[in-house]
Amino acid sequence: MNKLKSYKAICLDMDGTVYRGNEVIPEASVFINSFQGKDIDIYYVTNNSSMTAERFQAKLLRMGIHASTDQIMTSSIAAATYCKQHFEGAKVMMIGEEGLEQALRSEGFVITDENPDVVVVGIDRNITYEKLSNAALSIRNGAHFIATNGDKAFPTERGLVPGNGSFVKLLETATDREATIVGKPEPYMLEFIRQRGYSKEDMVMIGDNYDTDIQAGIRFGIDTIHVSGGVTDRATVLKKDMQPTYLFDSLTDWK
Amino acid sequence: MNKLKSYKAICLDMDGTVYRGNEVIPEASVFINSFQGKDIDIYYVTNNSSMTAERFQAKLLRMGIHASTDQIMTSSIAAATYCKQHFEGAKVMMIGEEGLEQALRSEGFVITDENPDVVVVGIDRNITYEKLSNAALSIRNGAHFIATNGDKAFPTERGLVPGNGSFVKLLETATDREATIVGKPEPYMLEFIRQRGYSKEDMVMIGDNYDTDIQAGIRFGIDTIHVSGGVTDRATVLKKDMQPTYLFDSLTDWK
Repeated sequence: MNKLKSYKAICLDMDGTVYRGNEVIPEASVFINSFQGKDIDIYYVTNNSSMTAERFQAKLLRMGIHASTDQIMTSSIAAATYCKQHFEGAKVMMIGEEGLEQALRSEGFVITDENPDVVVVGIDRNITYEKLSNAALSIRNGAHFIATNGDKAFPTERGLVPGNGSFVKLLETATDREATIVGKPEPYMLEFIRQRGYSKEDMVMIGDNYDTDIQAGIRFGIDTIHVSGGVTDRATVLKKDMQPTYLFDSLTDWK
Repeated sequence: MNKLKSYKAICLDMDGTVYRGNEVIPEASVFINSFQGKDIDIYYVTNNSSMTAERFQAKLLRMGIHASTDQIMTSSIAAATYCKQHFEGAKVMMIGEEGLEQALRSEGFVITDENPDVVVVGIDRNITYEKLSNAALSIRNGAHFIATNGDKAFPTERGLVPGNGSFVKLLETATDREATIVGKPEPYMLEFIRQRGYSKEDMVMIGDNYDTDIQAGIRFGIDTIHVSGGVTDRATVLKKDMQPTYLFDSLTDWK
């Protein structure tokens, strides 16, 4: 596995790969810290659109992991980047939380409640019927329909609650239009990392979830590493048509 | 068309057939009033779950149409009847408005926010993420999943806004479970009218929407009359595999 040492950008899923809830995964911590002082960049790649890069940075720091905000790639940051590249100067209507709002504003977008050119939808736990109606009416009036991520549900201490993908489905049903989804398994987040100066051969995507993390890497055309102990177990991965480049029991398998 | 005179229960869609918004359709008014004093019962059959029978009664009265609350069959009343027949004594969690709440209470159901046996979902323009999460968690925990109606969107003065069917799709997506939908085109409302003492031969379903009104009648196995001027135009109806029994330009075609 000498090839492992030739990567220049390691793209790591967070929840289920670096930590579980608020608990760091020890092997991940050892793995990440082993790159300190080396010429290899680590990126943290998450579909979670709710938090800002600063909040993820602080969360990682509480687990003893030092990261700059530039190393954090959320589906909100990616959605804002996508809008910047496709609809610069557009008026944007947003359904979302702090992470999406900050990402859109930092790309210079004006956020509006009326006559938007683009509607961007991320998880919003203060959702109202009015927000959903405004989004549906705007999409029917021709606004572009962008979603941070398509996760149908996400785990909480109470169980699986509706994820952004369920709200996207609501709006797709109400409007007969299909959203452009930016998060994993779509490859946009990896492409925006690549644009910082890597080639695809430089990059590897590592994660526990075959359907999002590994699929994103495969669709983007880079090497992938599946790590056991999270959403998808090893036996399930082995049944898939498209295999990850490597299957790890834990990140300490990296040699 | 002498057969028309042999029906004992005329089931009329309301919006698009009896009125448009707050304006009565004159031919419908003439049609309905022609049955006064005759031994033919009229039922008003609507997927709108938001209002109580009393509110529909008052709305019709403002248009000069006298109806008793027994003649009003809403998807909320039908959902409550369905629950009474299948889950009597169950604890019910509700997403919905006044029409659904009153219908469930009048069938004797206790409405709860915790550990329900049944989750009933109707349109709720005060929807919150908390309500949707509670419903999703309950459905995942095994509660029966009932929806008043599956309309994806409905018209307002601003345009088409999300209907209950879009919220049902959200919960189906979040839970991987399929709802039992009670409203048209499902035949439950017609069956609950039949149970008041009619045979199918006694009944006719009249409406402007092929996909809900006419389909409900066809699936239930009763005669149907499509009336032009509403959601589905005559040319579109004529292309369907399953034709309504009669095609009317207006309700004054009833002879």
